[in-house]
Amino acid sequence: MTNGRKVKLAEVAARAGVSVTTASYILNGRSAEMRIAADTQERVREAVAALGYRPNRTARSLRTRRTATFGLISDYLAFGNFSSEMLAGASAAARRADHLVLMGETEGDPDLENLLIEEMLDRQVDGLVFATLAATRIAINPRLTGVRAVLLNCVDLASDTPAVLPDDLGGGRTAAGLLLDAGIRDGIYVVGEDTNPVAVAGPLRLIGVEQRLREAGREIAGVVACNWDVRPAYDAVDAWLAGGARPSALICLNDRIAMGAYEALAEHRLRVPDDVSVVSFDGSELAGWLRPRLTSVALPFHDLGRRAIELLIDPDLAADPMVHLPMPVQPGGSVLNRF
Amino acid sequence: MTNGRKVKLAEVAARAGVSVTTASYILNGRSAEMRIAADTQERVREAVAALGYRPNRTARSLRTRRTATFGLISDYLAFGNFSSEMLAGASAAARRADHLVLMGETEGDPDLENLLIEEMLDRQVDGLVFATLAATRIAINPRLTGVRAVLLNCVDLASDTPAVLPDDLGGGRTAAGLLLDAGIRDGIYVVGEDTNPVAVAGPLRLIGVEQRLREAGREIAGVVACNWDVRPAYDAVDAWLAGGARPSALICLNDRIAMGAYEALAEHRLRVPDDVSVVSFDGSELAGWLRPRLTSVALPFHDLGRRAIELLIDPDLAADPMVHLPMPVQPGGSVLNRF
Repeated sequence: MTNGRKVKLAEVAARAGVSVTTASYILNGRSAEMRIAADTQERVREAVAALGYRPNRTARSLRTRRTATFGLISDYLAFGNFSSEMLAGASAAARRADHLVLMGETEGDPDLENLLIEEMLDRQVDGLVFATLAATRIAINPRLTGVRAVLLNCVDLASDTPAVLPDDLGGGRTAAGLLLDAGIRDGIYVVGEDTNPVAVAGPLRLIGVEQRLREAGREIAGVVACNWDVRPAYDAVDAWLAGGARPSALICLNDRIAMGAYEALAEHRLRVPDDVSVVSFDGSELAGWLRPRLTSVALPFHDLGRRAIELLIDPDLAADPMVHLPMPVQPGGSVLNRF
Repeated sequence: MTNGRKVKLAEVAARAGVSVTTASYILNGRSAEMRIAADTQERVREAVAALGYRPNRTARSLRTRRTATFGLISDYLAFGNFSSEMLAGASAAARRADHLVLMGETEGDPDLENLLIEEMLDRQVDGLVFATLAATRIAINPRLTGVRAVLLNCVDLASDTPAVLPDDLGGGRTAAGLLLDAGIRDGIYVVGEDTNPVAVAGPLRLIGVEQRLREAGREIAGVVACNWDVRPAYDAVDAWLAGGARPSALICLNDRIAMGAYEALAEHRLRVPDDVSVVSFDGSELAGWLRPRLTSVALPFHDLGRRAIELLIDPDLAADPMVHLPMPVQPGGSVLNRF
């Protein structure tokens, strides 16, 4: 650019004393094919540098049919640090493949979802990631039929579109394993049963916990139901403890539930981990802020974003249409080792 | 698309029994100009509907020189809910102007920043937002000279590029005003002095607090220095209280500091707000999770993202190159009303 004005190829050609066509051939790497003399090539490159000419990527995409962008549509973008980690993972993976990410937020509105998909297809994205911030079963938008697409944190059991999800069942097994490995075998309660019929995470985490305990010959002592947030969890655990419950460990189905449980335990003069061990899910920033630091089985949102884009780049990476990513332990000091 | 294959304009033209040029004129709204008969127009529209033809937006942009995208480059994308709120605000504002947002994360790497700017300019974005997640003074990237750009949450005092920032000074005044309005006039301490030389938020918040107290004939009783996170704040406030300090109120320079202060106060058997009132800054989700709910002067990240895009769309909106957005109070129960 000179003075904010876009330099035209014609100006490059004029300065180099060649035709626009010749300049175009040179800049598109086709000099050999056209037997263009080396000194002519050199003059054009000098003109490009002198004028600050920037090739028109849009024009180029007409030839290659690739605009080097992926689309990422999510129901919600403002959702703690999860969506930003997912976007960061997607953005980094796209960049490694010389792509940028066009993003859109549906706010859960089906009309807006339709519009965003149309707009991204209009812009000829090389593929689309469709994400939900809470793991759910969905019916895939029919506009995505025949389009290179990957579902992120959601799944349509009636569709062959690849889906990338956290391995919540494995995560549940991991959480139970943390307690068993610390010698805690009885009085293990789960806090935060999830009754949303399309929810995926809660039920799978619970099944994973049950499976792992059963393998060790143990079982869940009971389930405390509550909504998945700090205050409902505080209220539920407070009332439950007031009724005389004395757990040895709580498996909280997310970190916000664990924060509420911490507070209710403190209210009842029960110390974490000396009196009650706590493990949780999500691995959010919050887990690191609590005292003691909360041991949490983490949602791999950065990896989910990264993997979804990698599957767009190379669909053969998915041997199975559903890819489950492991949930790593984010260690803390909330589990008492009884050994 | 039919079977995932892109329908060509030539197929539309063939089905309608017109030339490709005629079909193109009709679909670009130039029928009147070319005196194309109404029934011909109708036939083309029917063919478009029957074949599911999607006009090639990339081709269109060659004529209009607009690809209908804005770029948003941020140093970090995974930064609590701030970046996701900013992106959501930017995305919604862009959509209202029929634009989508291309995003990129520099991870604080200058080479990556250069690369992302180049790539977005190559893709002919209609403008670029350059954001930092912590409010800072920066030297604007020379590649943005002559480009339509807006700085978000950062400022270059040597540049005329418009900058959108939270009004941290006004926010500081607001925080002090909350205490004065509740009848708290003495024993007001600030926790979390920020000594980073390029930081903008902390010093301005502190000046705002000082200004407002001075107007009421009062002053800050003292400042407790600590890094801006939960554990350093806990340690600093704990040590300070152990030394005999008895504040009537704490103004914590962010919510994570306030969480640490809450814990240290509890450790010393000081209740919030009965013994010590607490106000804070950021208005993050965390403020709503604490007990009692923390009164916090909120960073308007959604509005910052929205306004930055609006300034790209219409630069005349910025009467001044620096736009300061108000920081609204996110009310809680952490301030005792002494009246």
